[in-house]
Amino acid sequence: MGETSKKRLNIHELISGVTNGDIVSLSKAITIIESDNINDKSDSNKIISSCIKEKTNSIRIGITGVPGVGKSTFIETFGDHLTSIGHKVAVLAIDPTSSVNRGSILGDKTRMSTLVNNKNAFIRPSPASSHYGGVAKRTRESIILCEAAGYDIILVETVGVGQNEISVSEMVDFFLLLKLSGSGDELQGIKRGIIEMADAVIINKADGDNIENSNTAKSEFAMAIKLYPIKKSKWTPRVMTCSSVNSTGIKPIWKLILEYVTVTKANNFFNKNRKNQNKYWLLQTINDNLQSNFFSNEKIKKELEKQYILLDQNKTTPFSAAEILLKI
Amino acid sequence: MGETSKKRLNIHELISGVTNGDIVSLSKAITIIESDNINDKSDSNKIISSCIKEKTNSIRIGITGVPGVGKSTFIETFGDHLTSIGHKVAVLAIDPTSSVNRGSILGDKTRMSTLVNNKNAFIRPSPASSHYGGVAKRTRESIILCEAAGYDIILVETVGVGQNEISVSEMVDFFLLLKLSGSGDELQGIKRGIIEMADAVIINKADGDNIENSNTAKSEFAMAIKLYPIKKSKWTPRVMTCSSVNSTGIKPIWKLILEYVTVTKANNFFNKNRKNQNKYWLLQTINDNLQSNFFSNEKIKKELEKQYILLDQNKTTPFSAAEILLKI
Repeated sequence: MGETSKKRLNIHELISGVTNGDIVSLSKAITIIESDNINDKSDSNKIISSCIKEKTNSIRIGITGVPGVGKSTFIETFGDHLTSIGHKVAVLAIDPTSSVNRGSILGDKTRMSTLVNNKNAFIRPSPASSHYGGVAKRTRESIILCEAAGYDIILVETVGVGQNEISVSEMVDFFLLLKLSGSGDELQGIKRGIIEMADAVIINKADGDNIENSNTAKSEFAMAIKLYPIKKSKWTPRVMTCSSVNSTGIKPIWKLILEYVTVTKANNFFNKNRKNQNKYWLLQTINDNLQSNFFSNEKIKKELEKQYILLDQNKTTPFSAAEILLKI
Repeated sequence: MGETSKKRLNIHELISGVTNGDIVSLSKAITIIESDNINDKSDSNKIISSCIKEKTNSIRIGITGVPGVGKSTFIETFGDHLTSIGHKVAVLAIDPTSSVNRGSILGDKTRMSTLVNNKNAFIRPSPASSHYGGVAKRTRESIILCEAAGYDIILVETVGVGQNEISVSEMVDFFLLLKLSGSGDELQGIKRGIIEMADAVIINKADGDNIENSNTAKSEFAMAIKLYPIKKSKWTPRVMTCSSVNSTGIKPIWKLILEYVTVTKANNFFNKNRKNQNKYWLLQTINDNLQSNFFSNEKIKKELEKQYILLDQNKTTPFSAAEILLKI
């Protein structure tokens, strides 16, 4: 093998590396699809269109919860359990705050010290650069690459405080909310609407002195969830407790997810949902582009500032202001 | 007065009619701003820009709940109470289903037989025509006209089953969810996320045999609501029971709303929220227009159908498909 091909992998070799489950190839391929460099665009398209053809039988699981809830430890314990029963697990992350607050999730791989050394686990930190839409887009495409590389369980981690939960819920099959027991104070950090998105609420750190509180929290949530409207999936969200440290409650969570998959494959929600998610991302990408093209126009920017001021002074209405902006 | 001016009101007369609280002028003015006719555009703009200058001290209240929950009767009783203590009440409605299912809300004014004959109440049925965005936009502007006409309490009614709750929550100060007690079956009709939007949940029809059930429902909701994240307004949503038929629980609801206004004016959320709502409607109108311009293009429509099929067959990704569509 010549010096050139050593330095820069041939794209076909890279793709067959990915589909053969080679971790180095997978990492390089994800770096290419994450790249902002226009020269990587063609390679990126080739990788994705090859990987999407691979047949997979994956389960995509979103995991969210405020900082401090123990997401890393949970993922480590949960991921270890999954690999121990024969699965290959990929862990991806969406964290729009990561450029500000490095290490909050997955930035520091050492937080998952066991899983990172597990040959059946693949951990990829959040893409650091770019705007929010871009991060979600890349994670969405990284899922496809991981699946092509043979990872059959994809865990997508997010922080539960930003706009990103909807993005995550639109790229996974099952959405899991980690919570702590307690007075409700810890809830302040979490975004409204997330509880309703969850397919399961897991009260984490149900160990030691905290077991009683966790059981109380579990009953409270179970009662609260009863009051919610029925989901499109017809799945009734479940509340469970677990201790990532003691590894208790981990197996029941996996059993629950398998039950969900059985139920939603039987009622055809599983596949229909994935198809709807594709449409969501198609329309979302178009809308993001239309908006960013419009609002990045310098004339629009200036006029928008002007109209905002008039609005605040009650000198125009939102609709008259929009009319003026749309005429530019 | 000549024949011509009788037939067609002078626009300045019309505006002064509105600002003097004349109901006929207000109705005519709303008809003009609701009109799809391009010839009414200039008059419409004149009306709105005059009305927006009027100083008002209004409270805008959104009222939602599934059909059968007793919204009309509640609004009658509540509206009557408000006028009896000196307020002028306008009732508007957003119901995207109204063109399909006439009379579901306000289509039939006789459902509010007392209020409709109350000289301090103004009832305006949902605009029947046009697409959803248009209906919301018109209701948003009708609020301004009603306020200019001296109505200090604006009730915006909606059905709780469609996309319209977000629109309503973005045009009111206080959002009230009407519910029935019961096993939870009646919840199936209501859209997810609405409970979290509510500033108050009112268990309606708490009368006769239903009192005990209503109190149980009240405690359950009160507990559930405790688990929600704190609102931006810092307001803790409250759960109450009421009987529109017996007029019990109506005064406490009004007291609650006044408490909300006091709290949110003191912490400045009230005004900040109205300003943010203006920005929401400005951006929403622009985005609606960008999208409808894009997706009404015949070439785009055809290509979109093609890309949808490829997506369903797993032959493309949402992002590749979007790229193709955006290049047209």
